[in-house]
Amino acid sequence: MAETPVRFGILGCANIARKVSRAIMLAPNATIHAIGSRSLEKASRFAAENGFPPSAKIYVGYEAVIDDPDVDAVYVPLPTSLHLKWAVLAAEKKKHVLLEKPVALNATELDTILEACESNGVQFMDSTMWMHHPRTAKMAEFLSDAQRFGKLKSIHSSFTYDAGPDFLKNDIRVKPDLDALGALGDAGWYCIRAILWAVNYELPKTVTALPGADFNEAGVILSCGSTLHWADGKAATFYCSFLTNLSMDIIPLGTKGTLRVHDFVVPLQEKVAPFYVSSNSRFMELALGCEPIPGEHAVTTELPQEALMVREFAGLIGSIKSGSKPEKKWPILSRKTQMVLDAVKVSIERGFKPVEVVN
Amino acid sequence: MAETPVRFGILGCANIARKVSRAIMLAPNATIHAIGSRSLEKASRFAAENGFPPSAKIYVGYEAVIDDPDVDAVYVPLPTSLHLKWAVLAAEKKKHVLLEKPVALNATELDTILEACESNGVQFMDSTMWMHHPRTAKMAEFLSDAQRFGKLKSIHSSFTYDAGPDFLKNDIRVKPDLDALGALGDAGWYCIRAILWAVNYELPKTVTALPGADFNEAGVILSCGSTLHWADGKAATFYCSFLTNLSMDIIPLGTKGTLRVHDFVVPLQEKVAPFYVSSNSRFMELALGCEPIPGEHAVTTELPQEALMVREFAGLIGSIKSGSKPEKKWPILSRKTQMVLDAVKVSIERGFKPVEVVN
Repeated sequence: MAETPVRFGILGCANIARKVSRAIMLAPNATIHAIGSRSLEKASRFAAENGFPPSAKIYVGYEAVIDDPDVDAVYVPLPTSLHLKWAVLAAEKKKHVLLEKPVALNATELDTILEACESNGVQFMDSTMWMHHPRTAKMAEFLSDAQRFGKLKSIHSSFTYDAGPDFLKNDIRVKPDLDALGALGDAGWYCIRAILWAVNYELPKTVTALPGADFNEAGVILSCGSTLHWADGKAATFYCSFLTNLSMDIIPLGTKGTLRVHDFVVPLQEKVAPFYVSSNSRFMELALGCEPIPGEHAVTTELPQEALMVREFAGLIGSIKSGSKPEKKWPILSRKTQMVLDAVKVSIERGFKPVEVVN
Repeated sequence: MAETPVRFGILGCANIARKVSRAIMLAPNATIHAIGSRSLEKASRFAAENGFPPSAKIYVGYEAVIDDPDVDAVYVPLPTSLHLKWAVLAAEKKKHVLLEKPVALNATELDTILEACESNGVQFMDSTMWMHHPRTAKMAEFLSDAQRFGKLKSIHSSFTYDAGPDFLKNDIRVKPDLDALGALGDAGWYCIRAILWAVNYELPKTVTALPGADFNEAGVILSCGSTLHWADGKAATFYCSFLTNLSMDIIPLGTKGTLRVHDFVVPLQEKVAPFYVSSNSRFMELALGCEPIPGEHAVTTELPQEALMVREFAGLIGSIKSGSKPEKKWPILSRKTQMVLDAVKVSIERGFKPVEVVN
């Protein structure tokens, strides 16, 4: 990491930008170069409160950030309805784009963003932090092990939290003009990504939303779920909610093994994250018990997952500076996630009818 | 328990009868009085191998067992297709009926059995052992706690095991003329009961089977799943299979609390069984972690759950001998479970369409 750190510009002072700002400062190959907000005072306060380096530029508005020739990459935590405009403008100014999830209001919008990134040769990545935790790689090893896990048959995932009255009244994630995808876009995004991750990113054939979604008065989804179905018979289910106590589960069941993780989105503890596996389980004589007891694997990490995400993103930018092409994996994963999310939304709108996922 | 122990007659030498025979011998208020089998040699061997008391009668055929005036109650582990005939005959001979699950091929058959039990004043109970583990009562306390769990929003359950090639070729549970309900009747029964238990036995409004069930060549279900939906928006999903490594999960999510249990059907260890709860969880500052870490509750039991089941059943019989009426709770739970099971089966047969659960 002897190269010049990648210089980030941050668009807006969203709450989540506090965590990612810290991550940029923790990542060895990244630095905060600028932040822009509609209010100079708000941006200055944000920079001071979050320990930005004294050199960090404070801009009024987002345009000034993407116009700054010293900004290499932008982090975009704006409301989803603004992603299309600002991600495209940033790409056109040759800024690499780290985009909060949900990446867009729909796959058509996302395609415009991805085309802008591709035609301008900039890296795109969505800000799905858990993908970058070393635990995720360890769990993927287990899932791909023919002896320990076998063939995947079923997956269940949930991401729920009790958002509380202030959030349910005021947060952008319950406002139809800001984050129209509500809990599906916020929490459901993670479940869908988790399921796709577990099936090695094979798109399902159909999705069917669970009857009984919750909506606010403006029609924004506050909780929902879905089943996903693949041609080979694999089945997945998920549930996401702003109205339910915390759960962050992925439970893939294979012919030979079982994996469980209960804090996949945000590890309960920053430096050590567990998952639980059992393989080739069997009932004991007279079925008086079962063996083996699932084993706990605790994966430690010096850097939190969001800093590892920034490091990975900045590393790809470093490679591009040295002549490589942008890494295509990340936009592909974003697009698949968005496609399934769109299909769940359509299923809800059609009264929980099955919807084909068409690439 | 100074009363005379309840004297059980066992119909047949099914594998599961070994476990329940041990339970009858462990229960302080029960004893084995007789066993009947189509083969005298088989019944004699079964009695010897399972440590039956020397006084135990060995009969050829099931009729001799229910004709024995000293038999108070029968345990019926016969293939499901034989339940209707033998449970009804036993009830007509005033024998109390402990019936293996699935209790019948459908709710209509079950109604005939239950009518026979009711009109003959005998106790009916299905052999769903985990209902009787003290852990189950402890978990129910948590679910009914408005402060720690709140209102139930979603439940997921699974019971899967890798049955293996010999089972998949020869076991009664894959034979259409013996246990036509396959994995749904065997493993799915537990998931459905778990879900009903978690919602305080309120029947769902509709069920919709997950696309992608597995069948054997004779059309018997080897794996399947379903969603369940209540009028108030509660959502449940389950997955059951003979083709997947062991999982035995119930995960109810409430507005204020989360419960997880991973060995609800057969505790991994006989004398101590854990479950995991968290309440009023929250993200820490910057969402760098979450509190609280879910707490483990380990529930110990001197008697295994199947012996507690026998003790409960025998206790009810003791009360009936003293003039009480049969306890209506157990037939009601069996019937609700069977009704949901029937609806899932119909949904599968109709190509995974929603099916109303009509009482």
